[in-house]
Order: sequence, then structure tokens, then C-alpha cells
Amino acid sequence: MPLYECSTPSGMLDADQRQRLAAGITRIHAEETQAPEPFIRVVFDELAEGCGFTAGVPAPSVILRGGIRAGRSEDTRRAILTRSFELLREVTGAPAETIVISVMDFPSQWASEAGFILPEPTPEAEAAWLDDLEAAGKTA
Amino acid sequence: MPLYECSTPSGMLDADQRQRLAAGITRIHAEETQAPEPFIRVVFDELAEGCGFTAGVPAPSVILRGGIRAGRSEDTRRAILTRSFELLREVTGAPAETIVISVMDFPSQWASEAGFILPEPTPEAEAAWLDDLEAAGKTA
Amino acid sequence: MPLYECSTPSGMLDADQRQRLAAGITRIHAEETQAPEPFIRVVFDELAEGCGFTAGVPAPSVILRGGIRAGRSEDTRRAILTRSFELLREVTGAPAETIVISVMDFPSQWASEAGFILPEPTPEAEAAWLDDLEAAGKTA
Repeated sequence: MPLYECSTPSGMLDADQRQRLAAGITRIHAEETQAPEPFIRVVFDELAEGCGFTAGVPAPSVILRGGIRAGRSEDTRRAILTRSFELLREVTGAPAETIVISVMDFPSQWASEAGFILPEPTPEAEAAWLDDLEAAGKTA
Repeated sequence: MPLYECSTPSGMLDADQRQRLAAGITRIHAEETQAPEPFIRVVFDELAEGCGFTAGVPAPSVILRGGIRAGRSEDTRRAILTRSFELLREVTGAPAETIVISVMDFPSQWASEAGFILPEPTPEAEAAWLDDLEAAGKTA
Repeated sequence: MPLYECSTPSGMLDADQRQRLAAGITRIHAEETQAPEPFIRVVFDELAEGCGFTAGVPAPSVILRGGIRAGRSEDTRRAILTRSFELLREVTGAPAETIVISVMDFPSQWASEAGFILPEPTPEAEAAWLDDLEAAGKTA
């Protein structure tokens, strides 16, 4: 964790656009939170033709959902939301009003990575956690 | 936002049923919350054959998950849950015990639409937010 | 509810592995929470080739996400996280560092099953709820 999921209409993205989005979202999250990149995941799926509706009628949507550990500041979240929107605009070319983004908190102890319950998002807790992972030979 | 996601077994829904569900969920949400319809999204995906289990054995499920801004009353949520269930029953014909629905809150400031952080779900905050969107030429 | 969703790279799991994972996750949840198995759901989906990234580069991930009613102890959650990790390791053979798991709380009244708002996770509330379901002829 964090995990970002990006859903777009079928056929909207090619491999290069997915690569640019994944690299961009990873960079934004790392710069805004100082989280180490090896733990930042971005996945993509597609909404099939006829499977997206807005206001009850068929319409395309570009949906980015992030799940991050609770404890970041609201300024950090706002920066991620704002920069991700600009990235999605630039890479997809989708109209602004079709782009929805969420960045949701979850308590660190609700998730695990490599079998290790996540640390609080503080430098001390993260350093101790990374030591544990390294001692177990589980560092990426 | 709000965003409702509906997952059904592969092949259960045709285009007409998706349209009826999307229109119905949009109407329910709009009537119960007074949210403007242009911001209500419904998306559909399918669970592939052999990919759904209940009690550890293969079984179909009809899963509707909504994410809405925090601040609605519990009566509003209960009405959405109850009416969505009746709608799903009617449109899918699926047995009641296969239908699970959730309507989860998230704080307004955790999400954006067209690049604008969502307003609190009050008439005043929403009016100001819509004015911002209009001024930026981003109204749907 | 509870609902567990497992996402794996396309082609990683065959039908037998999905069956073992579904049975194992169901058993873990039932043993750790005493929830009745007929209400435990596990669904699977696949990440298409080129749709998963870690640290901004293509990489496989095995992602398990559970949503459970709030009110369980942190020991219960930790046991589910720990045992699910061991199960995923054993059944998928995936490297530990590719496996991420979350078990997220939601308030009982935010979801329904067979049209009935979920009870608090206490024996008394659950017994009364099951009586209601049975009276309505909706028991699985």
C-alpha cells in the first residue's frame, strides 16, 4: 500500500499511457508523502462498452481511487488530488467533467504488505518496519 | 461522486437491464439526497464464471456498492439501501439472499470532480461549488 | 457481508486454486469472527497483462481486500491478515513482497443482505437478525 486503481472506458488507454499514468501517480504520491516507491502500486481496469452511466444515461468516466494510510495532512491529500487530476487530463485527454478522483484513508493496522502489518506513516515507524522486512529477507 | 458500482454474474444483465438499473439507482439517490443528477455515476462489471463464492462454494452474487459523501442522515441511507434492494430484485430477478448492498460514507474533501474538491452535502456549500465549476466552464 | 475480493495477474489462478482460496478465506473469517459461513463471500478478478505497476514499473500484485463489520477486535483483524497471507503464499506461490492484504471496517448499518440492514457483530443482534430473515423466508 498505497494502492491506486484507475478505471477508464474500454480502449481509452494504450500501454504507453498506462505507463505514463503509473509513473506519474507513483511520483506524485512519493513526492507528496515521502513514501518509498517500492510500496506504491497502481492498477488499471476497463469499463466495458455500455457499462458506465452518468445522470442515468450512458457516459464515459475516468475514475481514479487511491487508498492511503491515515495520518497524512489534508494539504497532502489536496496536492495528490490536484496533481492527479492534471496528470489524468494530460495523459487521457478526457473532458474535465468526466474525471473523478478519490484518496481515501485507512488505518495502518488494517493492511499488510509481504505479511507485515503496515506501520504508522511516520519516519520512525517506517524505518523500524523496513528493518523488520529486511531482516525477514522480504524487501522488494 | 456519488459512485455506485454493480457487480453481477457474467451474462446476467443485458443492456436494457443495465439501463434500467442505472436510471433507477440515479433516481433513488437524487430523490433521497437532492444531489444533482449530473454528478451521480453508476458503473457495472461482471464476475466471470467460477469467480464468485458464498460459504466457500461457487455461488452467484449481486453486489451493489455506493460511495457517498458523509453527512447524510441514517434515514437517507436506509432509504437508499431499501429502495435499491427492491430495484435489484425487480430488474435482475435474482434471489433475495444473493443480493448484498453497501452505501459507504467518505468525507467530501477526500474526492474531486472535474478537479474540484467536493463540497459538504449542504445546499449552501453545493451552490458555491457549482458556481466555481460554472465559472471555470466545467459544468456538465 | 463480509466480502473478500481477490485480484491476481491474469492466468495466475486456476479453478482449483480459486476454490482453495475461497474455502480457506471463508474458514479463516468464520473461525476468527464466529460469523455464519452462509454470509461470507469471496470474489475473484484478474488484472490484465500490463495493468499492474509497482514503483511505476510493470509488476505483478496479489491483492486481497476484505470489508467486514466494525466491532471486531484488533486481534481478530490481525489474525485474519496473518492467516490470509499464509494462505495466499501457499496457494499462489507468489513472492511475499507482491502480496498486499487489507481488512477494512464498515459500520453494520451501512450494508444490507437480502434486503435486511446488517446487525451489529454481537451474538444477540445476530440471532435477532437471523430470526427476522427466517421469518421472511430469506435464509440461504
